[in-house]
Amino acid sequence: MDRSSLKKLLTDVRDGRTSVEEAFAKIRHLPYEDIGAAKIDHHRALRRGFPEVIFCQGKTPEQALAAFRELAGHNGRVLATRVSPETASLIKTELPEAQYRPEARILFLSRTEIKPRWGRIAVLSAGTSDLPVAEEAALTAELLENEVSRIYDVGVAGIHRLFSHLEELERARVLIVVAGMEGALPGVVAGLTDRPVIAVPTSTGYGASFGGLSALLTMLNTCSPGVGVVNIDNGFGAAVLAHLITRSGDEKP
Amino acid sequence: MDRSSLKKLLTDVRDGRTSVEEAFAKIRHLPYEDIGAAKIDHHRALRRGFPEVIFCQGKTPEQALAAFRELAGHNGRVLATRVSPETASLIKTELPEAQYRPEARILFLSRTEIKPRWGRIAVLSAGTSDLPVAEEAALTAELLENEVSRIYDVGVAGIHRLFSHLEELERARVLIVVAGMEGALPGVVAGLTDRPVIAVPTSTGYGASFGGLSALLTMLNTCSPGVGVVNIDNGFGAAVLAHLITRSGDEKP
Amino acid sequence: MDRSSLKKLLTDVRDGRTSVEEAFAKIRHLPYEDIGAAKIDHHRALRRGFPEVIFCQGKTPEQALAAFRELAGHNGRVLATRVSPETASLIKTELPEAQYRPEARILFLSRTEIKPRWGRIAVLSAGTSDLPVAEEAALTAELLENEVSRIYDVGVAGIHRLFSHLEELERARVLIVVAGMEGALPGVVAGLTDRPVIAVPTSTGYGASFGGLSALLTMLNTCSPGVGVVNIDNGFGAAVLAHLITRSGDEKP
Amino acid sequence: MDRSSLKKLLTDVRDGRTSVEEAFAKIRHLPYEDIGAAKIDHHRALRRGFPEVIFCQGKTPEQALAAFRELAGHNGRVLATRVSPETASLIKTELPEAQYRPEARILFLSRTEIKPRWGRIAVLSAGTSDLPVAEEAALTAELLENEVSRIYDVGVAGIHRLFSHLEELERARVLIVVAGMEGALPGVVAGLTDRPVIAVPTSTGYGASFGGLSALLTMLNTCSPGVGVVNIDNGFGAAVLAHLITRSGDEKP
Amino acid sequence: MDRSSLKKLLTDVRDGRTSVEEAFAKIRHLPYEDIGAAKIDHHRALRRGFPEVIFCQGKTPEQALAAFRELAGHNGRVLATRVSPETASLIKTELPEAQYRPEARILFLSRTEIKPRWGRIAVLSAGTSDLPVAEEAALTAELLENEVSRIYDVGVAGIHRLFSHLEELERARVLIVVAGMEGALPGVVAGLTDRPVIAVPTSTGYGASFGGLSALLTMLNTCSPGVGVVNIDNGFGAAVLAHLITRSGDEKP
Amino acid sequence: MDRSSLKKLLTDVRDGRTSVEEAFAKIRHLPYEDIGAAKIDHHRALRRGFPEVIFCQGKTPEQALAAFRELAGHNGRVLATRVSPETASLIKTELPEAQYRPEARILFLSRTEIKPRWGRIAVLSAGTSDLPVAEEAALTAELLENEVSRIYDVGVAGIHRLFSHLEELERARVLIVVAGMEGALPGVVAGLTDRPVIAVPTSTGYGASFGGLSALLTMLNTCSPGVGVVNIDNGFGAAVLAHLITRSGDEKP
Amino acid sequence: MDRSSLKKLLTDVRDGRTSVEEAFAKIRHLPYEDIGAAKIDHHRALRRGFPEVIFCQGKTPEQALAAFRELAGHNGRVLATRVSPETASLIKTELPEAQYRPEARILFLSRTEIKPRWGRIAVLSAGTSDLPVAEEAALTAELLENEVSRIYDVGVAGIHRLFSHLEELERARVLIVVAGMEGALPGVVAGLTDRPVIAVPTSTGYGASFGGLSALLTMLNTCSPGVGVVNIDNGFGAAVLAHLITRSGDEKP
Amino acid sequence: MDRSSLKKLLTDVRDGRTSVEEAFAKIRHLPYEDIGAAKIDHHRALRRGFPEVIFCQGKTPEQALAAFRELAGHNGRVLATRVSPETASLIKTELPEAQYRPEARILFLSRTEIKPRWGRIAVLSAGTSDLPVAEEAALTAELLENEVSRIYDVGVAGIHRLFSHLEELERARVLIVVAGMEGALPGVVAGLTDRPVIAVPTSTGYGASFGGLSALLTMLNTCSPGVGVVNIDNGFGAAVLAHLITRSGDEKP
Repeated sequence: MDRSSLKKLLTDVRDGRTSVEEAFAKIRHLPYEDIGAAKIDHHRALRRGFPEVIFCQGKTPEQALAAFRELAGHNGRVLATRVSPETASLIKTELPEAQYRPEARILFLSRTEIKPRWGRIAVLSAGTSDLPVAEEAALTAELLENEVSRIYDVGVAGIHRLFSHLEELERARVLIVVAGMEGALPGVVAGLTDRPVIAVPTSTGYGASFGGLSALLTMLNTCSPGVGVVNIDNGFGAAVLAHLITRSGDEKP
Repeated sequence: MDRSSLKKLLTDVRDGRTSVEEAFAKIRHLPYEDIGAAKIDHHRALRRGFPEVIFCQGKTPEQALAAFRELAGHNGRVLATRVSPETASLIKTELPEAQYRPEARILFLSRTEIKPRWGRIAVLSAGTSDLPVAEEAALTAELLENEVSRIYDVGVAGIHRLFSHLEELERARVLIVVAGMEGALPGVVAGLTDRPVIAVPTSTGYGASFGGLSALLTMLNTCSPGVGVVNIDNGFGAAVLAHLITRSGDEKP
Repeated sequence: MDRSSLKKLLTDVRDGRTSVEEAFAKIRHLPYEDIGAAKIDHHRALRRGFPEVIFCQGKTPEQALAAFRELAGHNGRVLATRVSPETASLIKTELPEAQYRPEARILFLSRTEIKPRWGRIAVLSAGTSDLPVAEEAALTAELLENEVSRIYDVGVAGIHRLFSHLEELERARVLIVVAGMEGALPGVVAGLTDRPVIAVPTSTGYGASFGGLSALLTMLNTCSPGVGVVNIDNGFGAAVLAHLITRSGDEKP
Repeated sequence: MDRSSLKKLLTDVRDGRTSVEEAFAKIRHLPYEDIGAAKIDHHRALRRGFPEVIFCQGKTPEQALAAFRELAGHNGRVLATRVSPETASLIKTELPEAQYRPEARILFLSRTEIKPRWGRIAVLSAGTSDLPVAEEAALTAELLENEVSRIYDVGVAGIHRLFSHLEELERARVLIVVAGMEGALPGVVAGLTDRPVIAVPTSTGYGASFGGLSALLTMLNTCSPGVGVVNIDNGFGAAVLAHLITRSGDEKP
Repeated sequence: MDRSSLKKLLTDVRDGRTSVEEAFAKIRHLPYEDIGAAKIDHHRALRRGFPEVIFCQGKTPEQALAAFRELAGHNGRVLATRVSPETASLIKTELPEAQYRPEARILFLSRTEIKPRWGRIAVLSAGTSDLPVAEEAALTAELLENEVSRIYDVGVAGIHRLFSHLEELERARVLIVVAGMEGALPGVVAGLTDRPVIAVPTSTGYGASFGGLSALLTMLNTCSPGVGVVNIDNGFGAAVLAHLITRSGDEKP
Repeated sequence: MDRSSLKKLLTDVRDGRTSVEEAFAKIRHLPYEDIGAAKIDHHRALRRGFPEVIFCQGKTPEQALAAFRELAGHNGRVLATRVSPETASLIKTELPEAQYRPEARILFLSRTEIKPRWGRIAVLSAGTSDLPVAEEAALTAELLENEVSRIYDVGVAGIHRLFSHLEELERARVLIVVAGMEGALPGVVAGLTDRPVIAVPTSTGYGASFGGLSALLTMLNTCSPGVGVVNIDNGFGAAVLAHLITRSGDEKP
Repeated sequence: MDRSSLKKLLTDVRDGRTSVEEAFAKIRHLPYEDIGAAKIDHHRALRRGFPEVIFCQGKTPEQALAAFRELAGHNGRVLATRVSPETASLIKTELPEAQYRPEARILFLSRTEIKPRWGRIAVLSAGTSDLPVAEEAALTAELLENEVSRIYDVGVAGIHRLFSHLEELERARVLIVVAGMEGALPGVVAGLTDRPVIAVPTSTGYGASFGGLSALLTMLNTCSPGVGVVNIDNGFGAAVLAHLITRSGDEKP
Repeated sequence: MDRSSLKKLLTDVRDGRTSVEEAFAKIRHLPYEDIGAAKIDHHRALRRGFPEVIFCQGKTPEQALAAFRELAGHNGRVLATRVSPETASLIKTELPEAQYRPEARILFLSRTEIKPRWGRIAVLSAGTSDLPVAEEAALTAELLENEVSRIYDVGVAGIHRLFSHLEELERARVLIVVAGMEGALPGVVAGLTDRPVIAVPTSTGYGASFGGLSALLTMLNTCSPGVGVVNIDNGFGAAVLAHLITRSGDEKP
């Protein structure tokens, strides 16, 4: 409700075109419309076509099902991440239209078609054990209606594999680069391209990788400027950030 | 050099239109043109209007001057970050056209006009002691020819100060949010808007802030998706990432 | 035993009103009565209506039962925290009057009515996965006979949800604020109210949350003064501290 | 503005008793009055008699003076913490009515008398090198108009020294316990009394004290429930929390 | 073999009293006798009455049995630490004379009587969950033929419980003090007595106890001089150190 | 005051042999005599011939002088550790009988002769940069009236240097082993002898030595049982522990 | 393709000896042949006789089998590390010629004979629980066709055991030294020999060994120069490095 | 002295060909000759042409001079590392033939010509601020009489710069790779070549580089096998290790 519509509403009250009760009902939520409002609107915009999300790690299959069931009752799209096969199988028993992608550990349900309408996002991964995180990012980005290129297994231990993909990198608007162990790939990629890079450390590794800490520090300390880092294993968060970037470019304020 | 021009070159050699020497000279650099080339071109594109950068922390005034002098000999724009007043003053003695912005610890020299041509970047900071980092980000973004809004001193200890700026946030294409100590501001901002957020932890604080580690961890663990984090105090890196985002939106591949 | 009663006792011995044996029995415990005494009294005062407590984490169901059985033999109230369903079920087989609250992981037994007689404590939690810790705090506070308000799921990723509860916060004498991941809620709440805030980091999260370390550091570094922090997941400790605060206000020394 | 006054305002508009402009002016600020308002009022309440605060660590004497001068222009009380003798002496040159307490590293200015009106706070310290932090806490608590007892040098290396103060502890409403190195004092004190304990780790120590980390961890892990911990060396924050506790007990909501 | 016996041996060879072969056999092991010798002798002395030790943590029951069987074949005493009930039960099937003490997680076999002949060692523990480590220390000390006093459950959360044991502390030659969580007990004990204190941090605790790190740091930072710290949960090592101390006092060099 | 003397006192009161006032005066201090008393006596015993100690690190020369002056007024022996040349020189100006040992950073004053009366303590150090800590230990042990052997520069990088000292090790009752960087010496020594070993990590080193943390962890994790560790650089504490060991062996309870 | 052959190719095109198509086919892969080529050649050289490697930790038996099956289809040698008995047994069901060495946790398949042709590598280990890592190193080095000496159980807790192997050390070209807990062995060995030492920390230990961190830091901080450290438990990596060293000495560039 | 010479010596004694005194003199040093001897010999071999080394960090100019003077009195070559200009200038006043290389922070003195006689070592560095460490490594390697190639400023932020040096890498026998900040260069290099790689993390960087910890972890976690890591900033240690590798290849045992 902007200023002119508030003024008009008050004039309508004065002139008897609107009853006090009607005006009251509209105005009493003003605080949320004013403060929240823009935000909530944008939130809604953000969530247009955006599935509601359930983080299943640490939930029992029954708890995940309960959450999924409730969201599926009110939403056209529901997305669950970190879904074990057991959880997926329990949910699909009740909601057979839900689709499970075990390689991304994602279960989702969409009652409308999902088709790309935002810019292209390239998802790169360093090694095969980074795949679950890379796929979580790639599939989330697709469910958010972005074009997605997957460029996997191009880690720095064989850096030449990366070069044949340079053109493909340039065709993307933003790059998500997933790497565990030493975590050097995002910095190398950022030095080779002028696309914004979202770095995702993974907990892949052992010993002094300290559950992904080593990769995380590498990415934060990269000398190639133009890299933003998300939490360890957070493929989902990387995809949302990439999506906000593509959308912010397409729907310029 | 794409395939058809290579074929044409070879045909020209066969047909005597090009000498062996000329062809040799062109082909022997192929590896760089093929692999590097795209990259180098894009690098150049990236650096169009992009000042050369010197990181002065840990350099003596004399070393900084030497580096600045050399770059200024070959570039229209030179940017130095983390510049102490002593260093600035020494450089300006020799290169009086250089401009020093002590609040951003930046010294730069530009022989062409700097005017905004990319999307708007908003820079938010939590507290007054985060200002040098926020200004490093804001001024760098301006020197990269982006529009910049400054929204300072809106930390979560008085979260209501943030609300009057919600509309301004929405007018930006990307947000840089700078915070030290607890580092909570980026997560709060990301929950209030649908713009991509670049979080910059600062080393502001004492005791268990551990030189910015606390703020860094907070930002990595935010439950608001859509946040990418850069290194502690890395205002410059945040600005470059923001710039790549605005440019990637405007110059879609 | 203060000085005058000691003197009187000695005079009674001298005058034959008290036998040496009686005096001896009283005096030989003096060290405890003098040093410990006040303390023990206050301890007793503290524990008036305070259930004896068993921390079950790391105990087998049988060990927990043995401890519970023994305390239940001598106390009107027994409280066990971190109780698994298996442990609860074993204990209830033997002591069916014990009550299990799985959402708080608490099993307790009270042979007298529990009714609020101290000031109001509000318990806030950031996300749904912080609930077990929040409930441990809330239920413990109730068993310590405080009024308790529960304000759940008001984390900073959607800070507007907090605002409708501002009045409720002001009605409490002390706030317990539970949050995992980034742990920013206590600082935001402390900036919005003038109540003392007890911050409880939880081990909720993954990756760089390092088992609650991130939330812990955030809370220690908050720039809103007026926040005291307890150990990770220590809902019980937060409730005891809150209870000491409400009681210290009501029973002023 | 509660519901009935909003309804009345609308009725007044309808009935011509209030002009559209007047109503507009009132309603358009509703969000702030509703959300912020209570908060701001309470803020004001909180700050009644509360000096404005400047944290001087990391500021040059000139910066500290500038901040102090500005606050002193608008406030009856100004408090600066972590003030070096140089800074104090510069500020006092310009504002000779300011008072410097070097043992607490505090400089303050008060144009009204400061007299205790809230409950008693006892400040305990373990060793002589914890004194600056303990004094920062004690003096801040006094400037917030609380009664303060100082019980210094009662660390656990000679635990018997603590016992002669047990009664004094019981006369306080809340205890601030300051300790560096091993940081064991707060847990011992909490086991001896039923007062809420605010624990302040200090950076006193060397080697494996890691700048106060050891003391901090000790305090978080104490097995005596009833202890809330603040940041390392944060005597000021402890005092504010203690003050909120005494006030919350006296001005019950 | 000291110098004179070597000279005598050579003289015997010269004079035909000893054959070259005999002398060769004696001399060829000289390096070990000379360098190692004292050591090996002392080792032997050290191990006189000292059971051979197997650390079972991380071994399968079968591996533990194999090690135990082999040592039992050559030694009058064998000691195994960190023995699970399953391992104990497997070993006792084959070697029924072995004795299992589950509270100490120790299995031992002794073919000669074990009776105290060295000074008294007191073992103190802070809480009930520290018992396994305390018992590992106490039983090991007994198997090394020291007198042992057990003083359990005297943690600082109820420091008065410690006082009735002060005399008992003084009767010991060395104190082993076991504590988890905050780990404050060794420092308090060291302040109350003039006996050498061996501090054993345990992994008891949760959250910011970080698997015993908190207790470890507390003990290293204690301001009471006279405390030596062993590894987390290392009851066995504490007992060996205490034993070396009592023996070094009785068998003065 | 044991039970029989208390009973006798009461009988004397009853029979008029002791006045009420006399009995009162004796009994009112019972708590301290009972709890504290033994302790205080022992404390006194501990301090017989034991200099009062001032830790000068972090004190200005003036503060150190003030502390030294006061102690020197009441004690025959005063010991100050971590004394800089400036501090030493200021104190000696006023108290010229104080002796400064710069290699140990110790200043002491003794009005009675210091001569060895307890068992021998050997102090070993790994490298030349560990000398200040080793000397702090050795000199403290001497001032505590122990015999001291110094065996310096026998680190594991040239382990053969250690072997010629094996006999000397065996002549000591307890060994203090000082090492920085990798900190391996104490474990090697403990494997070569059966003397109790007190390990002192030093902050010597750079990079991943993390201020002595590396050496500290090495010592805690040694597989040679019989090693107790003190804080980084804590030569003083090691000497006190060693002294308590030699004394506890000589003055058996 | 070096410069002269490129020139010759172009001359052949000019002179009609080579068709444009043939030249095109050769030249278009130049980038890889030039940049990558040398590398790929060397890679191939590196891998001559080098089994393809699968890291099985974190893979299900089925995933490991799939990877093994695929590599075995194209390679004469396949090496899998960190192989559990279950995984080994599943793979051997399908590929019975594969050989499993449980003590090294390695499964390998070789269709050609493996015989030593490079220099000798000695593998030393400190304790019995370091054996799996030492065997992983030793067996990998053998599969890479090096001579290997095994010198096990020579940890510093009994340093004399090492001395009888000094000559054997000198016969090797490079030493791999494996140690957990305190990790002191590599530094001691490096002080006793002039061979390059590769240090492998293991996760053996408990408490403050922090999963191998303690041993890792010890090795990095050793004062014996000539030690290179690999990741915790990385026996495989140590063997590859040792192999590159022996080969680099034999096949001097 | 092997077995046969010992037997022969004894036979000579028996037969009167050798006196008892002569035999005694030979045998009594056996332990050292057997254990130490080989070692000492090899040590000497190791040090042939190897300058004695002084680590000057933490030494005053006077202390450094004293150490240098003493070594120069007995050695033809002396090497001092981490030498400040002040220290260098003081030493050169007294020993003008010493040479100072400020870029390597090395001062050395050699009375014989230094000429390469071992294999080639390539030293690579990532950025300009890694130069002092790279030069310390390169110059040390030269002083140890190896051929050295310097390949500087080839960090991963512009990975293409590395490619023109691939052939040069292949000409070396071992590579030293120096990098700070993210520390990714050694892993990339190891993936591009089959030479052994010695990785040197530097303390270059800020914020989350934590004084070189980030680079260190990256290098330990690299997925390219064949990398050994030395301590942060330890250019000297890397050179010694590289030297032992080249020599071990040339002087095969």
